[in-house]
Amino acid sequence: MMLINTLLSAIEHELKKQVARLDEPHTRFFHDMLTYHMGWTGEGAGPESTGKRIRPLLVLLSAASCGADWQPALPAAAAVELIHNFSLAHDDIQDNSDKRRGRPTVWKRWGIAQGINVGDGLFVLAHLALLDLNNAYPAATVLNAVHILHQSCLDLTRGQFLDILYQDRLDLAVDDYWPMVSGKTAALIAACCHMGALLGHADPERQEHYRAFGQFLGLAFQIQDDLLGIWGDEALTGKSTVSDLVEGKKSLPVLFGLEKNGSFARRWRQGAIRAEEVREMAALLEAESARKSAQEAAQEMTARALDHLRRAEPQGEAGEALRSLANQLLGRGA
Amino acid sequence: MMLINTLLSAIEHELKKQVARLDEPHTRFFHDMLTYHMGWTGEGAGPESTGKRIRPLLVLLSAASCGADWQPALPAAAAVELIHNFSLAHDDIQDNSDKRRGRPTVWKRWGIAQGINVGDGLFVLAHLALLDLNNAYPAATVLNAVHILHQSCLDLTRGQFLDILYQDRLDLAVDDYWPMVSGKTAALIAACCHMGALLGHADPERQEHYRAFGQFLGLAFQIQDDLLGIWGDEALTGKSTVSDLVEGKKSLPVLFGLEKNGSFARRWRQGAIRAEEVREMAALLEAESARKSAQEAAQEMTARALDHLRRAEPQGEAGEALRSLANQLLGRGA
Repeated sequence: MMLINTLLSAIEHELKKQVARLDEPHTRFFHDMLTYHMGWTGEGAGPESTGKRIRPLLVLLSAASCGADWQPALPAAAAVELIHNFSLAHDDIQDNSDKRRGRPTVWKRWGIAQGINVGDGLFVLAHLALLDLNNAYPAATVLNAVHILHQSCLDLTRGQFLDILYQDRLDLAVDDYWPMVSGKTAALIAACCHMGALLGHADPERQEHYRAFGQFLGLAFQIQDDLLGIWGDEALTGKSTVSDLVEGKKSLPVLFGLEKNGSFARRWRQGAIRAEEVREMAALLEAESARKSAQEAAQEMTARALDHLRRAEPQGEAGEALRSLANQLLGRGA
Repeated sequence: MMLINTLLSAIEHELKKQVARLDEPHTRFFHDMLTYHMGWTGEGAGPESTGKRIRPLLVLLSAASCGADWQPALPAAAAVELIHNFSLAHDDIQDNSDKRRGRPTVWKRWGIAQGINVGDGLFVLAHLALLDLNNAYPAATVLNAVHILHQSCLDLTRGQFLDILYQDRLDLAVDDYWPMVSGKTAALIAACCHMGALLGHADPERQEHYRAFGQFLGLAFQIQDDLLGIWGDEALTGKSTVSDLVEGKKSLPVLFGLEKNGSFARRWRQGAIRAEEVREMAALLEAESARKSAQEAAQEMTARALDHLRRAEPQGEAGEALRSLANQLLGRGA
């Protein structure tokens, strides 16, 4: 855990340096909105509001577990976290979310216009951060990293497009799930591990194992999250907006349920689920095998992720930490 | 004009190729929204809806007037036009604009959530387009172009931040104008000319003259636009939303008027200008020298732009076309 804490502290320092590009007299308030969104300033600022910085950790641990120094890869670590935060800032507007990690969202505090621009600013800062790799890597390597990150961003907008599109659709099936979560969740996590291996000087075959590890890790993680969103302790208490069922989220268990076309699907198609129905609907889904099917899918993705990780042959303390982080994300204990 | 038509046709072809990255079965409707925004499809599609493609023309003419082939620079031309369109897509939401070039805006047709994502998609496509320079230029040159474009995007978000911030402010002065329009308008136009010269293999000093030409061209063009927004034929007829005075736009003449703190400023501070007041308010501004001051500023920026263009020594037919395009944009006839 020593290593993780060292990395987390270095990531935070690098992120602040990158965001400080906007810390100028004319744009100080712009900078303030960004540091609020990042969890550093304003009411409720602190570790609880920053998120877990999983993506930058994956970049650095991937690089270090290939046997390279992680320090020169810090700009890439900052870049992926800024991309993640760009997508959150826009997602909050697109989903009409008032709160993120218990605090008012940027658009809720300062309006949609500034909210969109905060996301755009984070997006640009991510790409400028990545170019700082130039100080430590050959131009061709930097361009390769830039390409990996942009391609994952394109996938991100594809996934987001589908997510928005699905909101009003009642005819979805399990096949519709994979392109959405591949884009929304897995593409950026795959890019983190891929870039890490690239910056760790891994050969193309090993890079591909790291990339595939990230891809399946992202998918397995998303399905875990979907399962917790319905059967997690908080979700089952039925507090409104805690259960994905109340939110109408097109999660994997719901899509298995819709495909089954039984009692769950009939009720779902009649309109929004109320908080007091949450336990009953979760029980219906379970009776119709949707929970089991989603668990099996998570297990399959987990097995594939761990297989690629094994074949990527992560080394040393960073390799241990990477395996441990993966197991933690996959709900298999630290 | 032969050259311009050849370039325009090549630009359109390259743009369509770049946007086609999203033309896949799952994301066809995403692609449709982008092609609508670009002016290629949907009701009212055609040359009137695409815009004038000034920015990509500046890239190609800058490269060619340095004595290089313009063809290899096409990905950069597509990139700047995609960036411009990304900013328009988000700007339409931020300004609550229902129409663009006579057609319903993307967010008005398909909602704010998809509207934001269309902008994000265009932004990513711009950067992926730029990486196609890799086929024809050394990695270090491509990275340089990537840096120029990202830096102009950061300036763009800075300018946009100020524009939104100014909406509710009554205490603005002329000094507040320059950082806003430097970011919103001039930065990207400067980047076009700078990248063109870079890809035209100009030395750093010559690149800097091209960049500065673009910067002052952008500023002069914006002031011209501001003047037309108040004293242009359409603006003076007083049709609502045609005059910048009705829109409450913080244009340069308005800021000169506010700084004067006379009758115009007193009326402005009392609330939105009505369509029937437009002639009277324009006359007040003129009487208080705001029109003349803005014209002088435009003349100064124009002189600086043309001075840098002269020192950039643009060559051949492309050089002629570049001078002609600049004069046209500066309202000095073709």
